[in-house]
Amino acid sequence: MAAEEFTTRTDVNELGEFGLIEHLTSNFPIVNSSSVKGVGDDAAVIDSGDFLTVVSTDMLVEGIHFDLMYTPLKHLGYKAVVVNLSDIYAMNARPEQITVSLALSNRFSVEALDELYSGIYAACERYKVDLVGGDTTSCPKGMTISITAIGKGEKDKLTYRNTAKVGDLMCITGDLGAAYLGLQILEREKQIYLSNPGVKPDLEKQNYLVGRQLKPEARVDMIDFFAKNKLVPTSMIDVSDGLASEIFHLCKQSGVGAFVEESGVPIHPDTELMAIETFKLDPITCALSGGEDYELLFTIDPKDIEKVKFLPDIYIMGEIVNKEDGIKLHTKGGNIHPITAQGWKHFGS
Amino acid sequence: MAAEEFTTRTDVNELGEFGLIEHLTSNFPIVNSSSVKGVGDDAAVIDSGDFLTVVSTDMLVEGIHFDLMYTPLKHLGYKAVVVNLSDIYAMNARPEQITVSLALSNRFSVEALDELYSGIYAACERYKVDLVGGDTTSCPKGMTISITAIGKGEKDKLTYRNTAKVGDLMCITGDLGAAYLGLQILEREKQIYLSNPGVKPDLEKQNYLVGRQLKPEARVDMIDFFAKNKLVPTSMIDVSDGLASEIFHLCKQSGVGAFVEESGVPIHPDTELMAIETFKLDPITCALSGGEDYELLFTIDPKDIEKVKFLPDIYIMGEIVNKEDGIKLHTKGGNIHPITAQGWKHFGS
Repeated sequence: MAAEEFTTRTDVNELGEFGLIEHLTSNFPIVNSSSVKGVGDDAAVIDSGDFLTVVSTDMLVEGIHFDLMYTPLKHLGYKAVVVNLSDIYAMNARPEQITVSLALSNRFSVEALDELYSGIYAACERYKVDLVGGDTTSCPKGMTISITAIGKGEKDKLTYRNTAKVGDLMCITGDLGAAYLGLQILEREKQIYLSNPGVKPDLEKQNYLVGRQLKPEARVDMIDFFAKNKLVPTSMIDVSDGLASEIFHLCKQSGVGAFVEESGVPIHPDTELMAIETFKLDPITCALSGGEDYELLFTIDPKDIEKVKFLPDIYIMGEIVNKEDGIKLHTKGGNIHPITAQGWKHFGS
Repeated sequence: MAAEEFTTRTDVNELGEFGLIEHLTSNFPIVNSSSVKGVGDDAAVIDSGDFLTVVSTDMLVEGIHFDLMYTPLKHLGYKAVVVNLSDIYAMNARPEQITVSLALSNRFSVEALDELYSGIYAACERYKVDLVGGDTTSCPKGMTISITAIGKGEKDKLTYRNTAKVGDLMCITGDLGAAYLGLQILEREKQIYLSNPGVKPDLEKQNYLVGRQLKPEARVDMIDFFAKNKLVPTSMIDVSDGLASEIFHLCKQSGVGAFVEESGVPIHPDTELMAIETFKLDPITCALSGGEDYELLFTIDPKDIEKVKFLPDIYIMGEIVNKEDGIKLHTKGGNIHPITAQGWKHFGS
């Protein structure tokens, strides 16, 4: 009776996440004139007459995106909202509403959900967005959260991924790699706890790194800064999968290459220390491949350099070059390595 | 190390789905003037200047909302879209975009997803909506689909749940209870197959009922009819949980009661027969408690009766009365029974 049987079986992993999305959605036509931008950017863009409506959606699955062994439910609620808002800000737009859908096994009590929603509430309050809808349902196992954020942007100020130009400067709003190391610390403490439940984890000294993982913030302050200084980036994307992957998306969609200076990639001293001393990792690898930093990666026309030059939270780390010149990292040691979507592996390591 | 421990534990079932949503969201304020309508209707409503943007979201979980033993993936994709569009039409608005988020275990191949997306494609084509975004992720087990539909409505024509007035006529766009019986048939065939995999299910004669379950349609034709005839219902809701539950929502939110004629509730001859002969159920119970019919339940001002009177697809089945008079069913046998949100149990059965 099984409803489906297929003669061939292609594993989803063969295509990868982005390949799969492209495979599944590329033949869908756009029929409504209001649909300005479909699949492929941080968010979809809908023409609302005087302005643009920007819509972003994310799904978080227990056991894949979060581990309730070390993630407080309040933090989870907060982060689930923030990662969606970050996508709206990455369009140089402002989120105003969210919907929250939740699938829950009977393991979760009302008290547990109150904790989750207190985090959602805190994010709504902090970023001035309204919870306007959603769906709550049971599921056989675990928890799945799907959040959709809806925002508003001005027609001449929206920033896409496919509009970087050769000669543009590449900027980033904050340090990278910390969230990834925060996750490594939490995973390590979990393993210690599992093999010896009597040991209490000491995360005090790792406040910065663990905080970047458990309670990220979206860079609304940068959107405010852009507006105040009449700066419109030529392209923008938020760093969720890792710097290398985001540079790759931006370059691929814009049909350009990039030249990135390792010395220009901001890395927090705690990240440096933890990477080298504890995890024996090259800090730049953490920055390039780590992900979940939720900083904004954007490009500007060189004429706008004076507007960002002295801002402590904006780092210029590279330049957009011709597609033929590839996407490359100029290391501190004076070598040049190609950057791939999967990140960058240190030569010889 | 477990992140959360609670001193009390309240089971989610104690509150019920609607009670839980109210409990979790009632303290969220609305801070943006663009948020016209939040949690509590078929869809959220956002002010977009010249018109209203309407947003609805639904989550479907394998093992809870669908069973892949008897649901072809193409039908699942189609239905997942349609149930969301139905919520937009229930606001007297028109969907233009959807986003599709998917959590998948490694059990699903690319070929299986192609089937699912061919159903999503068919629904997009049929209802003229654009797929503009989404998220695809892995999960430890099963499949979860979360779809958000975005539509457009005119400011003076949107229909809510809380605006039915005493004296209004209550109408329904099609027959009820068939989808519920279709599900019972499929569940029965599944059990037969599980105990004897050699037996091929014969669903030929149950085309109508099984079709209503597996491939529901949303009533865009009614929205067209309303527009053409300049009819704006005084309130509207779509029948997803069952007629009784929807009448209850509409009355509760409007602060009114209702008087429903059993003889006015449309039931298909196949539904009648299958309910009585095979499942020994009262057909009106199936209509009231069944759900998933995706017909539109709406109220009109009595002055508009001439506009709907002779339309074969609109059935007048009752009247809005004072709240004090309750929500009641006048049976064919001449009895009067209260209708509860959980449906209606036949007296003595």
